[in-house]
Amino acid sequence: MEKTRVELGDRSYDIAIGSGTLGQVGAEVAALGSGPRVALVTNPTVHALYGAAVEGSLRAAGLDVVTVTIPDGEEYKSLLWAENILTELLTARLDRGSLLVALGGGVVGDITGFAASLYMRGIRFVQVPTTLLAQVDSSVGGKTGVNHPLGKNMIGAFWQPSLVWVDVETLRTLPRRELLAGLAEVIKYGVIWDAGMFDYLSDNLDLILALDDVSLERMVRRSCEIKAEVVARDERESGLRSILNYGHTIGHAVEAVTEYKRYLHGEAIAIGMALEAELAAEIGIMSAADAAHVKNLIGAYGLPTEIPDEIDRGAMVEAMALDKKALAGKLRFTLPEKIGSTRLLVEVTPEQVSRVLKS
Amino acid sequence: MEKTRVELGDRSYDIAIGSGTLGQVGAEVAALGSGPRVALVTNPTVHALYGAAVEGSLRAAGLDVVTVTIPDGEEYKSLLWAENILTELLTARLDRGSLLVALGGGVVGDITGFAASLYMRGIRFVQVPTTLLAQVDSSVGGKTGVNHPLGKNMIGAFWQPSLVWVDVETLRTLPRRELLAGLAEVIKYGVIWDAGMFDYLSDNLDLILALDDVSLERMVRRSCEIKAEVVARDERESGLRSILNYGHTIGHAVEAVTEYKRYLHGEAIAIGMALEAELAAEIGIMSAADAAHVKNLIGAYGLPTEIPDEIDRGAMVEAMALDKKALAGKLRFTLPEKIGSTRLLVEVTPEQVSRVLKS
Repeated sequence: MEKTRVELGDRSYDIAIGSGTLGQVGAEVAALGSGPRVALVTNPTVHALYGAAVEGSLRAAGLDVVTVTIPDGEEYKSLLWAENILTELLTARLDRGSLLVALGGGVVGDITGFAASLYMRGIRFVQVPTTLLAQVDSSVGGKTGVNHPLGKNMIGAFWQPSLVWVDVETLRTLPRRELLAGLAEVIKYGVIWDAGMFDYLSDNLDLILALDDVSLERMVRRSCEIKAEVVARDERESGLRSILNYGHTIGHAVEAVTEYKRYLHGEAIAIGMALEAELAAEIGIMSAADAAHVKNLIGAYGLPTEIPDEIDRGAMVEAMALDKKALAGKLRFTLPEKIGSTRLLVEVTPEQVSRVLKS
Repeated sequence: MEKTRVELGDRSYDIAIGSGTLGQVGAEVAALGSGPRVALVTNPTVHALYGAAVEGSLRAAGLDVVTVTIPDGEEYKSLLWAENILTELLTARLDRGSLLVALGGGVVGDITGFAASLYMRGIRFVQVPTTLLAQVDSSVGGKTGVNHPLGKNMIGAFWQPSLVWVDVETLRTLPRRELLAGLAEVIKYGVIWDAGMFDYLSDNLDLILALDDVSLERMVRRSCEIKAEVVARDERESGLRSILNYGHTIGHAVEAVTEYKRYLHGEAIAIGMALEAELAAEIGIMSAADAAHVKNLIGAYGLPTEIPDEIDRGAMVEAMALDKKALAGKLRFTLPEKIGSTRLLVEVTPEQVSRVLKS
């Protein structure tokens, strides 16, 4: 069990990464000094797989556990469901010393962190991510929130967890499609930050896809180290943190125009990364060869790299204008210069974007 | 125009207190360096009185103003109405550089600050409080939020304004009953912090009730100074800040059992202060004479000091157990020791509370 520290002053916390460690989480939560009552927030799918283990571990550590479930799916990452969680916490009489434990993927983690940020103006929470996407990305960094019909993640708060507890063995029950979607964010770390990581993913594709524990731990740990470093240097996304948005401007637009139904988040980001690498080449800040390497690795992991013809390009550009990263009507992208190196806040005209979307 | 600074590091801000200063707010907001688009959040009553002046001032300063109104009343301080505000902000395409201006009383200020904290994970906002309660209390300190059917202010965030702009002339249009309710919180500052303030309120009752500008400015400024000092020393209510909860444990219970319909917040707090002074005398930490002085000044300002017989005392004690300040089932009060001096986190048994409620 190795720990990676996210350095944020009095909001610092550990990311603990291991294999077969789910049964130890109760002792770690108790060690945080929570009040006697904790709420486990999860969905029925994950609860059936790991609920008993986590509840048992929490109870064995002397904690009084209330389990709150939300339905499984991105459409439940809503203000309404956040309110439902808050109602259950109030009914169970959680107080300011209580703590929430999020067991599940990004939806569970984001909405649980958000509920923690809102409950009595903020209580602590612990992330126990069970999807690759959540383990390498959404559980670390304190971005919490819900979707709004007019835009993804438009309602939320920066609220850091007190601990992130990753057991890579949970990836064995993850549907293959979700595993691959999570790998999109892993590839992202290679492109934006670490050419060595990019090469590792290229060289160890078979081991990773075979869920080799050692390879998974190494890959998840390096991803978390990169995210932790970025977050420590820019908690509230006023600068460097926007490096993590590579692939996300086009990716979010893909999700928006397909109403979050056709693609998993990671799949949309995979398309976004391939096209934003092309955009970087189009405007001359990255070589066409590097853009091709990026696209090829994404494709090698079985992820999509192109937008189907039937998708409305105009609606995508519209969606980008509403993106949180847009400011005063200008489209701004995080674009790679070469593999492992990135340029922030590149202003791009809608015409340049349209050209890449159409190609 | 004098300014009082709330010292909170990179979240510091000014409280500007004056008479007839509403027309200058636009220049001050523009000076904060907001993006071109701001949203004015208010209710129809306040909008009819001061909307044109504030909108005109903002536009004269070169800002693009969208006005969002919520209905007038505590029952609209809800998650649903917060979502309605967020929908309007998204529809108007406010971005991360945009800023909200809250024009109104505590409901408008609390929900606007809350919406600002949530919109794209947080944008800036300015408080322009038009009720006495908001001017001396709720607009300062960053407590934002909404009510939940199971408890008042149970959902919220600490989110500091970038400026508080107080024009005491707005108190001339405030209904008398609301003015008096606001005075309850002013009296509170005297009891918990400043015996000189308590005496000032006692000696200048006629001038204050006649809305003499100089007296009002002095009274509002001293209240804001006290609140600013408390907030600067304990932003997130982990210690000293709970001094401001004097009168609020019983007061909130009065509001809860009367379903927020019978009393204005300040009236409920007036009852709470009178009874919590009695409670302090009952458990022997304050003299009976001082408790009587407190009760008498509250009464002199035309505020209630007793709970009507028909109110269910048992339900009140129940409500207190759900108060955010309760921890692990224990009732904890902020109680005065003498006028101008306070003791925090006094644990009191339900029986002691019941005795005072029945007397």
